[in-house]
Amino acid sequence: MSAWVLPDHIADVLPSEARHIEELRRELLDTARSYGYELVMPPLLEHLESLLTGTGEALDLQTFKLVDQLSGRMLGLRADSTPQVARIDAHLLNRSGVARLCYCGPVLHTRPGRPHATREPLQFGAEIYGHAGLEADLEALTLALDCLRETQVSALTVDMADARIVAALLEGNAIAPQRLAEIHAALAAKDASTLAALTRSLSAQSRDGLARLVSLYGDVRVLDEATRALPDLPAIGEALASLRWLASHLEGAAISFDLADLRGYAYYTGVRFGIYTPGATEALVRGGRYDEVGAVFGRKRPAAGFSLDLKELVGVASRRALKAAIRAPWGEDAALRGAIARLRTQGETVVCVLPGHESEADEFLCDRELALLGGTWAVRAL
Amino acid sequence: MSAWVLPDHIADVLPSEARHIEELRRELLDTARSYGYELVMPPLLEHLESLLTGTGEALDLQTFKLVDQLSGRMLGLRADSTPQVARIDAHLLNRSGVARLCYCGPVLHTRPGRPHATREPLQFGAEIYGHAGLEADLEALTLALDCLRETQVSALTVDMADARIVAALLEGNAIAPQRLAEIHAALAAKDASTLAALTRSLSAQSRDGLARLVSLYGDVRVLDEATRALPDLPAIGEALASLRWLASHLEGAAISFDLADLRGYAYYTGVRFGIYTPGATEALVRGGRYDEVGAVFGRKRPAAGFSLDLKELVGVASRRALKAAIRAPWGEDAALRGAIARLRTQGETVVCVLPGHESEADEFLCDRELALLGGTWAVRAL
Repeated sequence: MSAWVLPDHIADVLPSEARHIEELRRELLDTARSYGYELVMPPLLEHLESLLTGTGEALDLQTFKLVDQLSGRMLGLRADSTPQVARIDAHLLNRSGVARLCYCGPVLHTRPGRPHATREPLQFGAEIYGHAGLEADLEALTLALDCLRETQVSALTVDMADARIVAALLEGNAIAPQRLAEIHAALAAKDASTLAALTRSLSAQSRDGLARLVSLYGDVRVLDEATRALPDLPAIGEALASLRWLASHLEGAAISFDLADLRGYAYYTGVRFGIYTPGATEALVRGGRYDEVGAVFGRKRPAAGFSLDLKELVGVASRRALKAAIRAPWGEDAALRGAIARLRTQGETVVCVLPGHESEADEFLCDRELALLGGTWAVRAL
Repeated sequence: MSAWVLPDHIADVLPSEARHIEELRRELLDTARSYGYELVMPPLLEHLESLLTGTGEALDLQTFKLVDQLSGRMLGLRADSTPQVARIDAHLLNRSGVARLCYCGPVLHTRPGRPHATREPLQFGAEIYGHAGLEADLEALTLALDCLRETQVSALTVDMADARIVAALLEGNAIAPQRLAEIHAALAAKDASTLAALTRSLSAQSRDGLARLVSLYGDVRVLDEATRALPDLPAIGEALASLRWLASHLEGAAISFDLADLRGYAYYTGVRFGIYTPGATEALVRGGRYDEVGAVFGRKRPAAGFSLDLKELVGVASRRALKAAIRAPWGEDAALRGAIARLRTQGETVVCVLPGHESEADEFLCDRELALLGGTWAVRAL
């Protein structure tokens, strides 16, 4: 096999897309910064137990493992950065108040998450720690929407759910982890008959509640329906009130609810959301509240946040024009070299045509050239 | 062992350093762009033979290996991006003329390169393909210097060598790879007695030439000494002429020569350089000409370039002040929310104090606050 063949679901990002990703990356980080989110850079490699404790089986299967030659211990390549940032908040920063952190870097997956997905997403995310109130959920959601707007992705829909509803409906039943995963899958797929079969041995309240959940999706009226249809449990009441409050405070996006939705990471413990745009089959952003993740690092702190894959985002963000460059001849003339350096300092791209390459097509779009006009090096249109 | 303990030589990058690295990263990419270098993003994972063919044993030992669950084939985590970018030039872009490419991303090493080195450098680099003349070497060197200057690293020294000199001195002798590596190590360490022992069986011309090489370091006069002391071989003449030409065209940096230096990657085939600054024990930048790397991908093209580790660079670049932020109360008042959004759009960082956290110390440096003054939300000094 040729040396240039890449593994399946692994690809190079070539110049025009790479430039666009880099622009988006800066806009996302700058937007997070404008909210006071501080950048951190967790490592690609960690001890496996740091990466995977408390995060569920799905992430375990997605994580590449290898042996550390220095210690003989198992290492994992991060498949998700959120648990790492929770570790940084819990252990390294060790702040008592609110902490706002963001990150942007590659993660690796052993298998693609979907048929055409990359195994090397470029994950950007933001997390807010230390505030249990809904203001933190709202801030995460608002920041996620602002990030997408900044990158000129439009027609956004926020789809909301709450992890407490399914958890409350299942409480009191002894369910094996494998069965639980199957129930979650049937709920996500809205597969009522499979769900009925899987929940046959549960209490009547659990069984009926889960069955009703499958049809509880749509606009804000779903919350009223849910209040009537679901059992009157405190956690469900809280979850519905949270969703109602958040929906009433969100601006500039369509809002829908899908109370059976449990896709994405397993660590969510409260409100959870996906943000969709036409043209993307999957949610562009997934986020929510996950108060438990820091616990394995010795400090259980309220937490909410979101993440997205820049390689997905670039597919739906509108392209920008490439800034045109200036072509310059190569020469030893100090005046020429000075003129080139000045233009570059002013933010221009100046491409030197090396000797013997004068007849080549420009790889950069050059709309001007540096030429000797009346004894002075000056820029003129091409 | 605690879940928050990281593997040796692996570390989190925390906010103030991460912010600085991100600023440097943008300056480097923007400087490369101002020269017409296009950004590419090669993957972290590739088939092992793509990563390692033709790059030498040192890189092989530095490369983490794992098995691809999708194909059963061996994958490697890149330990150096240069061979990847050569693959992109040779196969994907397939341009006939000059191509200029740059990249910035993490690489991973099984073992630290030096006692206190990270195993996860953040590698930035730029490469120019398709021009065999010294103008390309000069452009790579000039761009590297401009990058460092842009990041406010000063008192730079360029140390130059040429891979053709040692190769020419060894030509005609049959030397096992292991012995060759030992000879290179003795040269790099200027260990004359070990070198003498290792080269005892070589031809007199090789043995004497190598012995003289050990003392050929210093300023530009070294080139004259070398012309006298080294055998009159065409490759050595060319190498010395190249070094002389480059030295005469470089501006704004001290220049030294160390003709025995062979440190860094094994793929260099011509002029090679390191750039040093006081305070860093190792070269900040290593680069040079490597015309052979693309050959394994089916297209042997002239190539020159350089790379550096941003995690090293940040240690010597002068710190910049953190831009101060604005503190704002949390509230549902539309006028307050509008004022916050406007300030953020203007590039300000506005940190909302969430309810109940009013007495916490700011994690961000806030020198102003948004306050209701005479019925209007306005910014005032703190």
